[in-house]
Amino acid sequence: MAEFKSKIKTIEWVDNYSKMVDQTKFPEHYEYVNITKGQEMFDAIKTMIVRGAPAIGIAGAHGVVLYAQELAAQNLSREDFIKNLLEKADYMVTARPTAVNLYWAVEKQKEIIKNSKSDIDGIISELKVNGKKLELEDIEINKKIGDYGAMVVPKGATILTHCNAGALATVGYGTALGVVRSAYANDPTIQVFADETRPRQQGARITTLELVMDGIPVTLITDGMCSYFMKKGMIDMVVVGADRIAANGDAANKIGTYTVAIAAKYHNIPFYVAAPLSTIDTNIKSGDEIVIEERSHEEVTMINGKTICAQGVNVINPGFDVTPHELITGIITEKGILKPDYKMSIAEVFKN
Amino acid sequence: MAEFKSKIKTIEWVDNYSKMVDQTKFPEHYEYVNITKGQEMFDAIKTMIVRGAPAIGIAGAHGVVLYAQELAAQNLSREDFIKNLLEKADYMVTARPTAVNLYWAVEKQKEIIKNSKSDIDGIISELKVNGKKLELEDIEINKKIGDYGAMVVPKGATILTHCNAGALATVGYGTALGVVRSAYANDPTIQVFADETRPRQQGARITTLELVMDGIPVTLITDGMCSYFMKKGMIDMVVVGADRIAANGDAANKIGTYTVAIAAKYHNIPFYVAAPLSTIDTNIKSGDEIVIEERSHEEVTMINGKTICAQGVNVINPGFDVTPHELITGIITEKGILKPDYKMSIAEVFKN
Repeated sequence: MAEFKSKIKTIEWVDNYSKMVDQTKFPEHYEYVNITKGQEMFDAIKTMIVRGAPAIGIAGAHGVVLYAQELAAQNLSREDFIKNLLEKADYMVTARPTAVNLYWAVEKQKEIIKNSKSDIDGIISELKVNGKKLELEDIEINKKIGDYGAMVVPKGATILTHCNAGALATVGYGTALGVVRSAYANDPTIQVFADETRPRQQGARITTLELVMDGIPVTLITDGMCSYFMKKGMIDMVVVGADRIAANGDAANKIGTYTVAIAAKYHNIPFYVAAPLSTIDTNIKSGDEIVIEERSHEEVTMINGKTICAQGVNVINPGFDVTPHELITGIITEKGILKPDYKMSIAEVFKN
Repeated sequence: MAEFKSKIKTIEWVDNYSKMVDQTKFPEHYEYVNITKGQEMFDAIKTMIVRGAPAIGIAGAHGVVLYAQELAAQNLSREDFIKNLLEKADYMVTARPTAVNLYWAVEKQKEIIKNSKSDIDGIISELKVNGKKLELEDIEINKKIGDYGAMVVPKGATILTHCNAGALATVGYGTALGVVRSAYANDPTIQVFADETRPRQQGARITTLELVMDGIPVTLITDGMCSYFMKKGMIDMVVVGADRIAANGDAANKIGTYTVAIAAKYHNIPFYVAAPLSTIDTNIKSGDEIVIEERSHEEVTMINGKTICAQGVNVINPGFDVTPHELITGIITEKGILKPDYKMSIAEVFKN
């Protein structure tokens, strides 16, 4: 199997700060920003300078290191340092409530904090090492997801995706777009259709950018068009990411995903979710328990600083929706492709 | 039944020109523009200063009068006047290929031209009278559509609509939003959810504007969100307009409509098309024969003059899609609500 070399590194720990691509500047600018404080990281996650469930997990882990560095400068006792740091870690998780990866990665750092036998400097060292480890693991996991997923991509396929579950949603390589990269490395006739993904247009701003950067053919469509192209036989499969997956396979992802899944079902087109196992929250039985983040009205009513609708209109802006498991053909993970019955296949993969 | 008074008059023949609301200025400005030349009318239709299938029908009829006025100034023989005018009329129809109403209304004017016994000035008078007649009939037809449609709107319903099939898509009152107006006049607890309708955002720019102007509660959502609200039980019915309906009930409407129809079917929500009989093209057997207009890529790649995606992306921009008849609960016309089997109900209504 040929291996795909991506140009993109989304987030990286460097010495004593976190370096990341500023995703609010897309598509005009591809710039890096250095995050040096814990609160800066909280804000970067909240305002989506960094976004994508796996990437904000790593950002959260880095953020805990940044808070640790700040607290270390306050001459606290080891006990107070740990108490304060655990509070800051819990606060970090509140930056985005839907994605489980943020919680998961911060919990990994909390385990270090709670279990370390070292002094304050030693704890910080351990947190840095662990942050770097999570970062490198994320790329390895994505490559495995990509390689498993590539096995179910038909020759010459056109793959529809929604939002951005790409290199720029992870440390690099991507989940849904990791599948695309692994498939493309061995079959340069495959191509991508990218949903614009209103309101925040991650498909237009981010997915097209990273695929163009990596030389993979991509066609931008508006969210309502998917069924039109499906009916014409122009879409062979759908692959999307996920922000949280319940124990029964219900998958929360960017608002609009559920609509695409229904359209795929209607046209008998395979619909895959690509996500690391860390996205699966076995503590929740079904998607009904997933908290859906409500985001600001301006995301819907304004584009590029200009109001697009009448004054006096009401708005509801759910950031995510839940695709029920019965619409999902398979969940592509680093341990293989989980198939229905998901209750069983998910329980099985977590048993090992 | 209470009657609804709308503030909106979209297009109107005045003396020797056509006065219309300039719909490219929404939502910032609600301004009128006077169209005094045939080519100006062609351009107004093409660039969507006037849009909406019934409204561009009237615009086309007015445009024929404008061409007639210009040709009258050229001292042509009556025969050459007629020959040239019929050519201009056929040219006018090419401004937008998908909507049948433009063809229909221009044909009505062509019948006047061909059958008139008058001199050139007399023909122009007859065309003016006929243009005004079509204009007034359009409002009457919409009110009938509205009143028939209101009968199937449940008490307190939330009605989802896509694009703008409103007063601003017609001379006044509207087709899909005519149903809303008639229902609202007798039940002020009903409300509308409006799809943004990318790429041209007619839902955001136009539907919200006309409903706010007329005091009807409206919530703006992005196109991908419809299924989310349907699943939550927040949508009671869908009503959309149509640009062309085939003899079997297949309905072409703004791109994205088909996706909404699939989502409605999946959630068992009634999906209605509201359109005058002039929208039904009994010459075509099914939606497969409907020509889908491909529009400029910039509609997808730019919003408010700013590029929203990477350079180097491919784009396909179909202006319409076809909702197959099996997804349509009923077609609301000025002669009542047509129900499946549409082949039979459509044939029946045209027999009378």
